[in-house]
Amino acid sequence: MRALVKEGPRPGMVLRERPVPDCGPSDVLIRVHHAGVCGTDLHIWEWDSWASQRLKPPLTIGHEFAGEIVELGREAAVAGLLEAGDKVTAEGHVVCGHCLQCRLGAGHLCQRTQIIGVDRDGAFADYIAMPASNVMKLDGIPTEIGAIMDPLGNAVHTVLEASVPGSTVLVLGCGPIGCFAVGVARAAGASLVVASDFNPRRLELARAMGAHVTLNPGGDDVLARVRELTGGDGVDLVCEMSGHPSGHAQAFAAARLGGRVNLLGTPSRTTEVDFARDVIFKGLTLYGVTGRKMYQTWHQMRRFLRAGQLDPRPVITHRFSLECIAEAIQVIKDGQAGKVILEIGA
Amino acid sequence: MRALVKEGPRPGMVLRERPVPDCGPSDVLIRVHHAGVCGTDLHIWEWDSWASQRLKPPLTIGHEFAGEIVELGREAAVAGLLEAGDKVTAEGHVVCGHCLQCRLGAGHLCQRTQIIGVDRDGAFADYIAMPASNVMKLDGIPTEIGAIMDPLGNAVHTVLEASVPGSTVLVLGCGPIGCFAVGVARAAGASLVVASDFNPRRLELARAMGAHVTLNPGGDDVLARVRELTGGDGVDLVCEMSGHPSGHAQAFAAARLGGRVNLLGTPSRTTEVDFARDVIFKGLTLYGVTGRKMYQTWHQMRRFLRAGQLDPRPVITHRFSLECIAEAIQVIKDGQAGKVILEIGA
Amino acid sequence: MRALVKEGPRPGMVLRERPVPDCGPSDVLIRVHHAGVCGTDLHIWEWDSWASQRLKPPLTIGHEFAGEIVELGREAAVAGLLEAGDKVTAEGHVVCGHCLQCRLGAGHLCQRTQIIGVDRDGAFADYIAMPASNVMKLDGIPTEIGAIMDPLGNAVHTVLEASVPGSTVLVLGCGPIGCFAVGVARAAGASLVVASDFNPRRLELARAMGAHVTLNPGGDDVLARVRELTGGDGVDLVCEMSGHPSGHAQAFAAARLGGRVNLLGTPSRTTEVDFARDVIFKGLTLYGVTGRKMYQTWHQMRRFLRAGQLDPRPVITHRFSLECIAEAIQVIKDGQAGKVILEIGA
Amino acid sequence: MRALVKEGPRPGMVLRERPVPDCGPSDVLIRVHHAGVCGTDLHIWEWDSWASQRLKPPLTIGHEFAGEIVELGREAAVAGLLEAGDKVTAEGHVVCGHCLQCRLGAGHLCQRTQIIGVDRDGAFADYIAMPASNVMKLDGIPTEIGAIMDPLGNAVHTVLEASVPGSTVLVLGCGPIGCFAVGVARAAGASLVVASDFNPRRLELARAMGAHVTLNPGGDDVLARVRELTGGDGVDLVCEMSGHPSGHAQAFAAARLGGRVNLLGTPSRTTEVDFARDVIFKGLTLYGVTGRKMYQTWHQMRRFLRAGQLDPRPVITHRFSLECIAEAIQVIKDGQAGKVILEIGA
Repeated sequence: MRALVKEGPRPGMVLRERPVPDCGPSDVLIRVHHAGVCGTDLHIWEWDSWASQRLKPPLTIGHEFAGEIVELGREAAVAGLLEAGDKVTAEGHVVCGHCLQCRLGAGHLCQRTQIIGVDRDGAFADYIAMPASNVMKLDGIPTEIGAIMDPLGNAVHTVLEASVPGSTVLVLGCGPIGCFAVGVARAAGASLVVASDFNPRRLELARAMGAHVTLNPGGDDVLARVRELTGGDGVDLVCEMSGHPSGHAQAFAAARLGGRVNLLGTPSRTTEVDFARDVIFKGLTLYGVTGRKMYQTWHQMRRFLRAGQLDPRPVITHRFSLECIAEAIQVIKDGQAGKVILEIGA
Repeated sequence: MRALVKEGPRPGMVLRERPVPDCGPSDVLIRVHHAGVCGTDLHIWEWDSWASQRLKPPLTIGHEFAGEIVELGREAAVAGLLEAGDKVTAEGHVVCGHCLQCRLGAGHLCQRTQIIGVDRDGAFADYIAMPASNVMKLDGIPTEIGAIMDPLGNAVHTVLEASVPGSTVLVLGCGPIGCFAVGVARAAGASLVVASDFNPRRLELARAMGAHVTLNPGGDDVLARVRELTGGDGVDLVCEMSGHPSGHAQAFAAARLGGRVNLLGTPSRTTEVDFARDVIFKGLTLYGVTGRKMYQTWHQMRRFLRAGQLDPRPVITHRFSLECIAEAIQVIKDGQAGKVILEIGA
Repeated sequence: MRALVKEGPRPGMVLRERPVPDCGPSDVLIRVHHAGVCGTDLHIWEWDSWASQRLKPPLTIGHEFAGEIVELGREAAVAGLLEAGDKVTAEGHVVCGHCLQCRLGAGHLCQRTQIIGVDRDGAFADYIAMPASNVMKLDGIPTEIGAIMDPLGNAVHTVLEASVPGSTVLVLGCGPIGCFAVGVARAAGASLVVASDFNPRRLELARAMGAHVTLNPGGDDVLARVRELTGGDGVDLVCEMSGHPSGHAQAFAAARLGGRVNLLGTPSRTTEVDFARDVIFKGLTLYGVTGRKMYQTWHQMRRFLRAGQLDPRPVITHRFSLECIAEAIQVIKDGQAGKVILEIGA
Repeated sequence: MRALVKEGPRPGMVLRERPVPDCGPSDVLIRVHHAGVCGTDLHIWEWDSWASQRLKPPLTIGHEFAGEIVELGREAAVAGLLEAGDKVTAEGHVVCGHCLQCRLGAGHLCQRTQIIGVDRDGAFADYIAMPASNVMKLDGIPTEIGAIMDPLGNAVHTVLEASVPGSTVLVLGCGPIGCFAVGVARAAGASLVVASDFNPRRLELARAMGAHVTLNPGGDDVLARVRELTGGDGVDLVCEMSGHPSGHAQAFAAARLGGRVNLLGTPSRTTEVDFARDVIFKGLTLYGVTGRKMYQTWHQMRRFLRAGQLDPRPVITHRFSLECIAEAIQVIKDGQAGKVILEIGA
């Protein structure tokens, strides 16, 4: 089969012929139809310090995908809950099931997580084998959307870790996950969704996803506008998707007394925090978002998608074949892309 | 009546004769029996930058107290729920009842809070008038303990803003509120309570309040010991009561994946935070603690005290008369005191 | 002023001249513009056993209203948060603030609740005096809608006492509050809202409020249809608004394993419950809904209304003057009315 | 190996030689040391209507046990988290992992649950094979206690599905699980634990587990005493463990306004409920308890046991060998037993 492989400790990926993976007794084998390209894949392509410390080449890349079941392991088959021909997507975090976090229902924080495309072979390939328990049926959701339920799930996790109906929400950073967060907040009944980014193209996508107001810190006084829009109170929930220290400062300042800041954007450096003024006297709650809750997040997301309450398609801006991975990486680097899809099979 | 008054914009307080306060229609007038001296009172005594910006002298100081009702305003009387002769304590935050926070049940974060002894006349005096809604009966709790239910309530708020039964708890900083937090965690069914401070006298008090293990960062490797005591997982809950940036770093490192850090200690400067490593990838929740929940915290505290599950008396180390306020301030400055009580009336 | 008064222990109400109420120090005096007529008012009109045991005539009736502040008591004025000319509505439960429930933030369950129009003079009059803390500004919401925020709040309380975004909801009983519940569930991001009633006119109103599917137990197999619509799982949340024992049975059967049944409809007789089959083995949660959370419910409702997410107007079917109360009562008895409004002042 | 087997559709069980079970790729094989005999086993012995409809003989009985791992399947071994020689217990509900409830973290309500000793071969035998994910290490807890962590977990689930620290708790019915609930409530920081039963022997066990007050409805006015002990308020939490309609009535009446009734005792007939008076106007929450949360309940229970906060041993009143099952069943029928243990291996 074809696979995009990181062959050694250096930038780039190459398209190679690799054997179709074995399907273990608890696994299903999936024919990949669509895959999503993520910022993480960009780090891997560029072989930055994080990637070089974490990955052990050779490795097939890719962790966002959807496709069709073509084979089931003995134990996976016996349950009768998944069948060959089912269109599916999968949680890319393969977890141990035994650590404290797994036992507490926080598998997304498993101490022994193996991420596909990072710690084990991934989904930029014709086939991938996944533990059956990680696999979810699409039940009519197209595989193109199924392929981006991983990052969409990040947004669902970030937004729904708050009481959203009737709330005011500020999304800082309108990359694909920020734009998704806008749509999730609207679907979940937020009364006001404000989105902020320096990039006008991204603000367009945020508007397409339902932002009531978009702000550009290049020209707008974000804090002043947020206060004005909220009668001086500040917002109930900030979704920090930018990962910039300036985003953190803005998040703490924009949240209302007793509000909440859910942080997903991963900063590359430290932030100075005035805990007394910004957290303690404000009675704030901060929450660090990793992955997707296994599997509440997936369930909620599937409900939103199937009911037509959430449509992530405006954020999909580019589609490429496996062969054109270099172009896919380039449009992400250029900062003009929303979500980038690889069309692999059918 | 006698009152300890900040007369002008300078250090110190003076004992003065002042008129007994008026008792408005919704108020009760209370004869003060005992009062607690707080770190805040030390800032006010020393007239530091916070105090000089916030206080408008002349002002009677003191916000922790208990005593006996001697008069009721017309509306306070008609309800029949409070009576002359009742032994009571009171929440010192007088709130507006109308702002967003008050309407959401978060009166402790009221946008128009007036704190007694800071924004309006306080309790280091023979009498104080309080809105009846701020007043709670002691129902058998001695006034000496009633006088410290304000800081004890800070500890109750900090600890109970987590699921405590069966949990592992690290208390960083063993001033009076840290020591109280140890006792609250034990009362609430924590399985392991570890307390840390540089001051051996404070660690003694923490042990007297029920700490299973006390650590001194001067000699102990706090993180290594916490990991060892928790089978490598880290603790479920950190109560950050030190207010030191080093305490913050330790808090984030000591909390388990998916754990919680409740911050009460108010730092005087900023902290460098590695949000990616310490909050986001760990899936941590941080919570800033202000005051006491009005009035869930008071209810829970009263239950613990009346049932004998929590006894804060080991932390009371000194008692003074109103006249000896200078000595009371001095023992706090010396760092050898637990909780310091003023004996005012009877 | 004019007032609709229950003069003695017998059916009916009469329009009388009464003195304008006194405005106490903590009160505001409100000129009533619109009032809502409720099923409770029907019980009072008919002087049923509940009414005859609870009310002490003479009494002005009416507990749903909105209007304009015309006078403020001394303490109400000093805060500066409410002003003459403000358009307002009010929570009709006047609570003690001191009982366990009030102290726990559950004032809607206060042990000493006094309901206007039931335990003290009410709002079917030109003026009413209310404690300032019960009063909320309309901030642009028309008084006609303000006048029905009491029953609308019942619906908000019922629906939002569950995690609604992405959920499936069944509303049993489509009287005004049931219809409101449909709209609230939609506003809060439910993925599927099914409404059931025997009355085709009420099902029309439910559809107007956004029900995806309406069912008539007269012809539809409600349980079979609910299972079909939910892939066999049953619904996440049932709002039981009918008060019929058959509604209870249907509620328990229609809820999914681990689901929730929030009960607001007040039955006039007992229900046989198979707790083993219907509650314990299903892991259900049942919740009894009284009034409105004070004041979270009001806040959420105001957000929904001001953002245009919720529009209760389709449910308003009739408007009468104070003089025509007998006609208003009659249309409610006839079962063809949605919400009935009294137009009192302007 | 030896196994206690229900051979056909009739009362009793017989001791038989059976082959040691196969250990599948995801399974571990466990040498059983101790097992607990449960009321369910009594129903199976007597072949009542529930048992005759549910069980398909021949079947090895028993679902409460602990022992030692002697073999690991290929996938179970590769993880390295369990090893031969580990002392373990196991959740007896084998769940599908794919249904709505499993995906929502409510595996205890799985639509396809298979219970050992009921739907598949059980633990009254020398060996049992269990899915590795159901198995938990005892980490020093003796196997005799490990063998009763299933019913102890029922109690943990019942009690901890409430906010216990500082609360008042009434336990209705002091069979083994009721007695365990008393101990769990004390461990979790309840301020008052009242236990009620007609059987004086059971009340003794409840006192041994830490009940502050025990009541016998034969002589005590339970409601009057509960009101007296709670200052007229009623209790925060009722644990209904009796399964009697009279227990339900008492539970609803004894709970405070806004309180909670968690129901575990499974009644054999229906109950008349006055929902208006007892649930709706009281603002009660009712919760049906099935099994143990997978696996939060197990984690909390292990914490309590390992910290010495909870000691279930006073409730263990009898021990028998496998051969003496008839005697074990008889002492349970006689109503004088607490928990009955089978000593199987070592």
